[in-house]
Amino acid sequence: MARLESIREQVLAGVSRLPDEEVPLARAAGRWLAEPVRARLAAPPHTCSAMDGYAVRAADLARPAALPVAQVVYAGQQPGRPLEPGQAARLYTGATLPEGADAVVQEELVREEAGRAHFDRAVRAGENVRRAGEDVAAGAEALPAGVRLGARQLGLCAAVGAEAVRAVRVPRVVLLATGDEVVSGRTPDSNGPVLAGAMAAAGAAVVRRTVGDDLLEVVAELRRALAEGDAVVTTGGVSVGARDHVPKAVAALSGEIRVHGVPMKPGKPFLFASVGGKPLLGLPGSPSACLVAFEVFGRPALLRMAGAGRLGRRRVRLPLAEAVEGRAGRARFLWARLEEDGAVRPLGQDAAQVRGPALADALLHLPAGTGALAAGAPVEAWLLEDDVP
Amino acid sequence: MARLESIREQVLAGVSRLPDEEVPLARAAGRWLAEPVRARLAAPPHTCSAMDGYAVRAADLARPAALPVAQVVYAGQQPGRPLEPGQAARLYTGATLPEGADAVVQEELVREEAGRAHFDRAVRAGENVRRAGEDVAAGAEALPAGVRLGARQLGLCAAVGAEAVRAVRVPRVVLLATGDEVVSGRTPDSNGPVLAGAMAAAGAAVVRRTVGDDLLEVVAELRRALAEGDAVVTTGGVSVGARDHVPKAVAALSGEIRVHGVPMKPGKPFLFASVGGKPLLGLPGSPSACLVAFEVFGRPALLRMAGAGRLGRRRVRLPLAEAVEGRAGRARFLWARLEEDGAVRPLGQDAAQVRGPALADALLHLPAGTGALAAGAPVEAWLLEDDVP
Repeated sequence: MARLESIREQVLAGVSRLPDEEVPLARAAGRWLAEPVRARLAAPPHTCSAMDGYAVRAADLARPAALPVAQVVYAGQQPGRPLEPGQAARLYTGATLPEGADAVVQEELVREEAGRAHFDRAVRAGENVRRAGEDVAAGAEALPAGVRLGARQLGLCAAVGAEAVRAVRVPRVVLLATGDEVVSGRTPDSNGPVLAGAMAAAGAAVVRRTVGDDLLEVVAELRRALAEGDAVVTTGGVSVGARDHVPKAVAALSGEIRVHGVPMKPGKPFLFASVGGKPLLGLPGSPSACLVAFEVFGRPALLRMAGAGRLGRRRVRLPLAEAVEGRAGRARFLWARLEEDGAVRPLGQDAAQVRGPALADALLHLPAGTGALAAGAPVEAWLLEDDVP
Repeated sequence: MARLESIREQVLAGVSRLPDEEVPLARAAGRWLAEPVRARLAAPPHTCSAMDGYAVRAADLARPAALPVAQVVYAGQQPGRPLEPGQAARLYTGATLPEGADAVVQEELVREEAGRAHFDRAVRAGENVRRAGEDVAAGAEALPAGVRLGARQLGLCAAVGAEAVRAVRVPRVVLLATGDEVVSGRTPDSNGPVLAGAMAAAGAAVVRRTVGDDLLEVVAELRRALAEGDAVVTTGGVSVGARDHVPKAVAALSGEIRVHGVPMKPGKPFLFASVGGKPLLGLPGSPSACLVAFEVFGRPALLRMAGAGRLGRRRVRLPLAEAVEGRAGRARFLWARLEEDGAVRPLGQDAAQVRGPALADALLHLPAGTGALAAGAPVEAWLLEDDVP
């Protein structure tokens, strides 16, 4: 992806991480960590049993023996007293080990009779014990910066006693759909909901606007959008025709066009500019081209602003379910379904189609110069998510 | 996964799709379609140009020629009149083709001079034309039932003029965390945010409650939860010890325990019951075991209620970054990171650990009987998403 990758780097060089702020954990879902989360509490918080069973001193059980059961400890309780040499304690999963105990024998291997626990085998110190801080020691890093706070990450934060985190501010993005056909409603604006939803799913706060094919109006709306947003994303009007006002409006606003036209299909007319220090991403108007350009350049740019450590989709190499052909001078992207057997099957190839993206699990990337690929050949798949806004 | 798969089928047989309802598109995000979406409008709505260029009658250009440019049509406009034989029309991408035109020649290949367009080569009918309904014909199925409405799907619905859809009702789930340690706060309830978030990300409306280790209280809370929710999910108290009240409470409520204990690690104590016709999923209390049991049984069950066509995570086979060992009598699940090169690296192996799930991109499934797997060997990876609640 040499050329495309270098264009992507150019785009990313034009956006910066937004400032960060203190956010209570209860309101941090979907944000990215600006700083690592350190453990206020160790996980687990106390040295505890990994099993329902009997806590012992391993030294007492170098060989089979029977020991009096001196106490019972449930998961919600602190042990009342230390475990004396020669004693056992009944313990449930998660119960804190009494002082002195250093191993747990699982209940299936123990016979309790008349207050005595019978052990049929030798026990090693540490067996079935989870040491305090075994997952995360107190004070240690629980999560690094750049991680997104989804359900599992929020659980870890709760486990280590984090009540607030340093998170990057939510990017405000103005999405400006251009074109008389969009304003008049003659062509349904399907890019609007797709992009607004995809950007919201990628953590942005999105404001949607439309503007017709009039240069002065486009200039005015862009000025307003740039004043309001941390970034502006436009759709349509970005090619080189008489009605393509976005590049001209950028020039009128003394913006610097850094990228205009990229060697890929679909998505070729993509534009990236810096206007008054703010990034402007100009996406083509055709639905599939619009969305591919967003995936290749737009999403990574927004994620960098939002503080994400990983800017691309998760990428894997998967076998093709059918043959496809790459192009000589440009990269090719194809929407694809993931089949039951783990292969990927392309879903039609028209730049403007809207059905492919809606049915796709992955976006296949064929770098420029990829020749004919046979069924079964491995291909780079960018794994899409549901992107529920 | 023969045994685990048959247990999963047993669980799925105990849950049903909820009723469906009419939902305006603007409020349908995250829902699953109960019925296919049919196209009220074709996509594209009109036969249009796929390029900036010149519309012609291909019959006029069996060989190179120059034609007068009789009209200009922009994307937002209807052509003013038909294209007469021997004429060309200037057209922009997305512009409707004038009646009579059947091909578009892209502008790079045409020289316009003094009102005449010069064509240097023969033209085929249909070239660079997108026929009305090419993506989706009017009246045809745009999306099948069982599809989730994320950003890309909402865009397609907008493109075909759908203003409302038949969607399955949002499942109401009561999440009941059991255990004195959870009620007292002595052990942070990390399962609570993880599961509540994962269930919300999977489309459920979640109510969270806690209850201590008291059988009568567990019975009372379960009764209340079953009255309120379409399903109940419990954490903790599901094993076979003296304090494991969930199975006893199910019995006290005359529920039918259909699954109790599954051949996998972690997650072994999982319980599934039907109580008064409602499903109850009992997850273990250890964080990783809780979440693995949710992924294997809980999430598919909730997704079936919500009307999803695909109940499991997207699954692929990826190479292992390091060697791992399976188990003889039970399946093994490992949290794993997806590396740059597309290999998966397991993240620690303790059942109760909370850091692995928070750093994982995938859950690896080693079916029972999987022996030693070397680095590089392919392994079944269930692809996780961010699961932002």
